Amino acid sequence: MPFTFDRIASTGAARAGVFTTPHGPVDTPAFMAVGTLATVKALDPLELAHMGCQMVLANAYHLHLRPGDELVRSLGGVHRFMGWNGPMLTDSGGFQVFSLESLRTVTEDGVEFRSHIDGSKHRFTPESVMQIERNLGADVIMQFDHVIPGQSDEHDAREASERSIRWLIRCRTAFETASIPDSRFPIPDQALFPIVQGGIHANLRREAARAIRAEGDWLGYGIGGLSVGEAKPDMYAMLDVVNVELPEDRPRYLMGVGFPEDLVEGVRRGIDMFDCVAPTRMGRNGTAFTTDGRINVRRAELRSDPRPLDETCDCSTCTRFSRAYLRHLFVAEEILGLRLLSLHNVHFLVALMRRARAAIADGSFDAWSRDWLARYHSRPTPVP
Amino acid sequence: MPFTFDRIASTGAARAGVFTTPHGPVDTPAFMAVGTLATVKALDPLELAHMGCQMVLANAYHLHLRPGDELVRSLGGVHRFMGWNGPMLTDSGGFQVFSLESLRTVTEDGVEFRSHIDGSKHRFTPESVMQIERNLGADVIMQFDHVIPGQSDEHDAREASERSIRWLIRCRTAFETASIPDSRFPIPDQALFPIVQGGIHANLRREAARAIRAEGDWLGYGIGGLSVGEAKPDMYAMLDVVNVELPEDRPRYLMGVGFPEDLVEGVRRGIDMFDCVAPTRMGRNGTAFTTDGRINVRRAELRSDPRPLDETCDCSTCTRFSRAYLRHLFVAEEILGLRLLSLHNVHFLVALMRRARAAIADGSFDAWSRDWLARYHSRPTPVP
Repeated sequence: MPFTFDRIASTGAARAGVFTTPHGPVDTPAFMAVGTLATVKALDPLELAHMGCQMVLANAYHLHLRPGDELVRSLGGVHRFMGWNGPMLTDSGGFQVFSLESLRTVTEDGVEFRSHIDGSKHRFTPESVMQIERNLGADVIMQFDHVIPGQSDEHDAREASERSIRWLIRCRTAFETASIPDSRFPIPDQALFPIVQGGIHANLRREAARAIRAEGDWLGYGIGGLSVGEAKPDMYAMLDVVNVELPEDRPRYLMGVGFPEDLVEGVRRGIDMFDCVAPTRMGRNGTAFTTDGRINVRRAELRSDPRPLDETCDCSTCTRFSRAYLRHLFVAEEILGLRLLSLHNVHFLVALMRRARAAIADGSFDAWSRDWLARYHSRPTPVP
Repeated sequence: MPFTFDRIASTGAARAGVFTTPHGPVDTPAFMAVGTLATVKALDPLELAHMGCQMVLANAYHLHLRPGDELVRSLGGVHRFMGWNGPMLTDSGGFQVFSLESLRTVTEDGVEFRSHIDGSKHRFTPESVMQIERNLGADVIMQFDHVIPGQSDEHDAREASERSIRWLIRCRTAFETASIPDSRFPIPDQALFPIVQGGIHANLRREAARAIRAEGDWLGYGIGGLSVGEAKPDMYAMLDVVNVELPEDRPRYLMGVGFPEDLVEGVRRGIDMFDCVAPTRMGRNGTAFTTDGRINVRRAELRSDPRPLDETCDCSTCTRFSRAYLRHLFVAEEILGLRLLSLHNVHFLVALMRRARAAIADGSFDAWSRDWLARYHSRPTPVP
């Protein structure tokens, strides 16, 4: 079996495990870096490997538009294209297509939309998206799903959730029968993950999880449609609901989440995998995660601060550069500033999950996570 | 002696040597990466070290304005500030100040100018510039000189050259007597380099070199005011003139030059050290040096090109990424594209000088440089 999931320890709902893929293992819980356009923004794959990031995402919608999934396939697939030989996952583009509010038309068959780049017309169906994700060749590929805003009422949420399940069935058929263009590169082994939808409605989440499980024994489970505008307590409540419905021996991936506190809260509720653009987006904006909360390096009081961003951090930024230098880079609009903060922020989440895993393994997770959240939320003034 | 220069081989005027500084040796001929604002644009110091770049520049004008040389001093100097523990050189800012055409007033005492950032008034004199360069703490510091356009007539060129020599005397006095603010960091050992000016007038260049040598036995010699608008044959002619005037046992630094062909032509004429913003500026613009001339990675015919930028290059970009991927990064405006091309271009010049050095050492430099220039200038169509 090219895909396995072995649990090595648990504390309450929190689990530590190893998710094995054709491109190697992922120690869970894990934060996956987001490389939308086949590049984790501002970072080099070597930096990701060096910090211990084991799995990287790319996006079917974005790569289909630019440079084109067939081109990526002809060059050997997304791993080879972007120089990342570790585990990869592609999101189906459902989230992106449904975000194009004024530019799309949804039917049972699929979604017609206009490109955000040039307005050109495109059509995504479960079948076409499977072909795109087969061409890209990531280890894990997500189903094409119907994503709705976080505050949607039960009627809309039910419609989208039930459609997502019908689309899952079509995805599986297309996945199993998709032809991959002839080429000198082998056809990749891939795992199709379903996505549990249902908005913030516990009954819908429960029904969705059960309906998906009734369709088969999937190699892993996505949980989608969260962190899209709903309140945080609603998100956490949905995780509690879904946690008990999903099989224990399969990894659970909470899509598009999140911030450091969300990761810790998610792990407490049985989540194994996370992804989010926040660390790189905030890094480019000058905001850094620290153990004591966030800081923006442009702040005037950092001008002569010789300390690292986070004195407890062993990343390649914190072990070499002062806040004063990082502030200088941002004030002078130097690219190295974006690089170093993006690197620190992604490392921060990767290391946070490594720490959580160790705490689960040694039985200290409950106390550790409580203490960690208390310190993070206390946010003292960052400069004395 | 913290500064030495040992010649290990020569072929005609071309020399291979080792320039030793308090922060380590520099194998010459050498290309130095330009880190104007205490960062080589888009690159990390680790990448520079990895490619074998041994010496890095910073700029007194830019760092005085932002973040301030006193701040840099209080944080331990420019090496520590930017995380580069190898040899460093600061340019005095003469070139920058004299480029501010409408914003400056020149007198014998110095130059009054307005900041290009906020229009604030500043005054540079040989004395103030020495204080700035002492504060920054680079190994080699350049004198404050009067820089003029490349096509200046003999009258203007003479005036600027003679003033530069008077300023050199003042620089030396100030350098020897400058006080460094108290701090917990030691006072750095530094070498002051004079700069030979004289425009494109052979007699002025000769006179300047002789007058500077009459003033003392300097640890190295800058050659300035070239590659500033004059024709290339004029620049090469000036190098031939200066070459025979400078002492053989001191390194010669051709300032602000250049392109790959200029480096090879310069080495043939006895130059040991070069710097230029071209590799990073062109890299950010999508243009790459190759053994067969320059290419712009945005070109449509690179869309599916699986080859590296340069098949003979062993840099971290060429050993991992295709032209197709690099083109994709530039089309999608991804920061990694700027990084990878900047890295390749700086590596290209560093490796070119490493290759020239080996050819000087084994006696093949004449034939190698002739062949190299012929291939570089032939520029075949880059894609078959």
